[in-house]
Amino acid sequence: MLFSTETYVQRRQQLRELVGEGLILIFGNNEAPMNYPANAYKFRQDSTFLYFTGQHRDGLVLAIDCATGQETLYGDEIDIDDIVWYGSVTSVADMAAESGIARTAPLSQLSTLVAPKRVGGLHYLPPYRPDNTIQLMELLGQSRAEVMAGRSQSLINAVVKLRSIKSAEEIAELERASHIGYLMHTAAMRMATQPGMTEAYIGGQLDGIAASYGSIVSFQSIVSMHGEILHGYPSAAPLEPGRLLLVDAGAETREHYCSDHTRTTPISGHYTPQQRDIYDIVVACHDLALTHAKPGVRWWDVHMDVCRLMTERLKALGLMKGDTEEAVQAGAHALFLPHGLGHMMGMDVHDMEGLGQIYVGYDEETRPSTQFGLASLRFARRLEVGHVVTDEPGIYFIPDLIDLWQREGINKDFLCFDRINQFRNFGGVRIEDDVLITPDGCRFLGSERIPYKADDVEAWLMA
Amino acid sequence: MLFSTETYVQRRQQLRELVGEGLILIFGNNEAPMNYPANAYKFRQDSTFLYFTGQHRDGLVLAIDCATGQETLYGDEIDIDDIVWYGSVTSVADMAAESGIARTAPLSQLSTLVAPKRVGGLHYLPPYRPDNTIQLMELLGQSRAEVMAGRSQSLINAVVKLRSIKSAEEIAELERASHIGYLMHTAAMRMATQPGMTEAYIGGQLDGIAASYGSIVSFQSIVSMHGEILHGYPSAAPLEPGRLLLVDAGAETREHYCSDHTRTTPISGHYTPQQRDIYDIVVACHDLALTHAKPGVRWWDVHMDVCRLMTERLKALGLMKGDTEEAVQAGAHALFLPHGLGHMMGMDVHDMEGLGQIYVGYDEETRPSTQFGLASLRFARRLEVGHVVTDEPGIYFIPDLIDLWQREGINKDFLCFDRINQFRNFGGVRIEDDVLITPDGCRFLGSERIPYKADDVEAWLMA
Repeated sequence: MLFSTETYVQRRQQLRELVGEGLILIFGNNEAPMNYPANAYKFRQDSTFLYFTGQHRDGLVLAIDCATGQETLYGDEIDIDDIVWYGSVTSVADMAAESGIARTAPLSQLSTLVAPKRVGGLHYLPPYRPDNTIQLMELLGQSRAEVMAGRSQSLINAVVKLRSIKSAEEIAELERASHIGYLMHTAAMRMATQPGMTEAYIGGQLDGIAASYGSIVSFQSIVSMHGEILHGYPSAAPLEPGRLLLVDAGAETREHYCSDHTRTTPISGHYTPQQRDIYDIVVACHDLALTHAKPGVRWWDVHMDVCRLMTERLKALGLMKGDTEEAVQAGAHALFLPHGLGHMMGMDVHDMEGLGQIYVGYDEETRPSTQFGLASLRFARRLEVGHVVTDEPGIYFIPDLIDLWQREGINKDFLCFDRINQFRNFGGVRIEDDVLITPDGCRFLGSERIPYKADDVEAWLMA
Repeated sequence: MLFSTETYVQRRQQLRELVGEGLILIFGNNEAPMNYPANAYKFRQDSTFLYFTGQHRDGLVLAIDCATGQETLYGDEIDIDDIVWYGSVTSVADMAAESGIARTAPLSQLSTLVAPKRVGGLHYLPPYRPDNTIQLMELLGQSRAEVMAGRSQSLINAVVKLRSIKSAEEIAELERASHIGYLMHTAAMRMATQPGMTEAYIGGQLDGIAASYGSIVSFQSIVSMHGEILHGYPSAAPLEPGRLLLVDAGAETREHYCSDHTRTTPISGHYTPQQRDIYDIVVACHDLALTHAKPGVRWWDVHMDVCRLMTERLKALGLMKGDTEEAVQAGAHALFLPHGLGHMMGMDVHDMEGLGQIYVGYDEETRPSTQFGLASLRFARRLEVGHVVTDEPGIYFIPDLIDLWQREGINKDFLCFDRINQFRNFGGVRIEDDVLITPDGCRFLGSERIPYKADDVEAWLMA
């Protein structure tokens, strides 16, 4: 267990007070079969279950009765046959005691608990694993659609409220995750300039570093000479000198706190003048975000400031034209930046995305946009002390998108397609770090900064 | 696609002839969410779907109408928004053409196909992923229990018949997987003797090698100083000089053919006399299996021969006593070897275990046992040319099991508990390689043998 018993007890008490009434059920994850029932992927506990219990075993469910305050950990004990295969395992009772939960019961008793409580309100989070969905379907005697519709908004709101603000202890664990990210990215940068290297080999080594120092990559690593494909998975093709290699990758610690960084490395060791022109704009945007991020500021506004700067600089390169403010309002820059400036990060790399991005990144004051590009801004509301967000501007030349916009004349008053087409084979640049909002502004997470300014990257690759 | 279009066409034709009538549905795998819907584990296609189509994309279903021979690949196309995130993707029509499948249709049309065909017999394999279970529940309007009960025995039998015999092309791919296994195990052996090393670090590096040269580990690596726990996952504790480190690990190639090897390395670089006594017995058992394995021989009988040799040798060490044959028939040796000699291997590391182990490893002639130990023999029937099986004897000292048997007097006429208790802290030894049955006998898979004889291991660690 990462934190003290008292921490988990307090978190559950706060949750109960926020939800107020009814029965709260928080499902832990089960093993996820890969290619047959007994061959599972590496176990990954549900983040919310871990947040409220600290327990890593599969097959557990936490129940909290808001009226009485009674807490129960549901789970089945293992027997001697299992001990031969898996060794001695902490009993459900010992886990409950460690987490400060008074009662335990076998999973089969969950149905008797749920039935009479449904009148008073049953609170569960939207299931994202199909086995949990089936558990709920069978427990409630409902269809999948009914189960999905029945998720509790008050429980979602309460969990988001608690998990959004990272404690000092959590920040220490996030720093550990970022340190693993440092090891991953510096290794990838070194490998990128080695002859005969492939994206797939680098991607595999990133898996290895994440697993050796933590538990698993926080998402499938993006390792691509085609950085313009936002989620480009590694191919077996050898790296081509002259291209850029975009690596977007992160680790989870053994306690499942995440990191998420992106670097874009010149495979030849040096950026070409064209690459540097674009790269330097992304650096400037990245740095700008950090000067603007502080408590009370909306991340939406920081995103828009970054878009303005990017538009100014792309105009100077002859790639955009017209009035900057009009271009940004029209979303013309989204041809180059079709995603948002960043997202919240924590125990999930897109923190709590499974609860509904709109409840995490938006609120009554800040509402989402449907405009292409801006619609992909995952987090937009006012920053608070203890928020952790990613700062990840990028510029991409996406041939399919360029062709579509040029053909349909989209934002043609702001885009210089002749010049843009000179960059068709460019690929893409993204630079990403993880940022903690502090009372004074913000700071990076991690023990050491992964080199990111063009001169620093080139010097580091030469060293 | 790994093999030629013709190969997949032929496989499907054989399948259709074996099943004979009705509609065959083979479900491909979908993305498996890890901690929220959009954050999935590394995609792993279903082995049977891959065997009959060669296609790696998620969200596909293959339908074969046995009466008409009509084949349809069901799947949905991606749109421009997806292209921005994932790049251009092969269309369902192009995949079907590559695999020699005449028709394609969107997934939504699957329900119209299934409804009228159910009378003539609907054939599907037992689903092992809960999302496929839900797909079937909704398609058939049935409960989970009904869906599970409705799996087709004739389809299971047909798939087992085809996939059990590995072609020359498949063997070449299995050799590639074993080569990755060689790289993994030699790396682990080197790391095992380095000061300050942890099981978790080694386990992570194995993930990295498997992913760099192939796709993923073929199962969660077992890396443990407590080899007596048969599936002991790596802990963060530093390796202790004097103990043995058991590493049971394998890789999948990018085309999802597997390897599975075990080595047991002395952390100090040399086996103690006690360790070598036990280790040498396991080596002898491992070698014995190879001299007995050939077409027409039952793997059951090879397992029993190994048990006899093990019992003889354990008697010589004073750990067992009495008549060897009686001891083996009573299952007394299972205190030390509570599992079977090996299992079939192929596109699944326990090949086709999801279809039902009994249909893969047993037949009308060879029936499973319920005796402790022997009941865990996953494969027992007569060997045929083209079978690939693992040869993995082991000897373990499991304190919980020793205490149970001593307390209850189980097999006390054959077991010398006083002597056995001197080995309580020993751990366990297992040695495992992958074996192809040939017309003349058998041979190892892989380009180079991972050192396994005690002298060879020690010399190799010194080199």
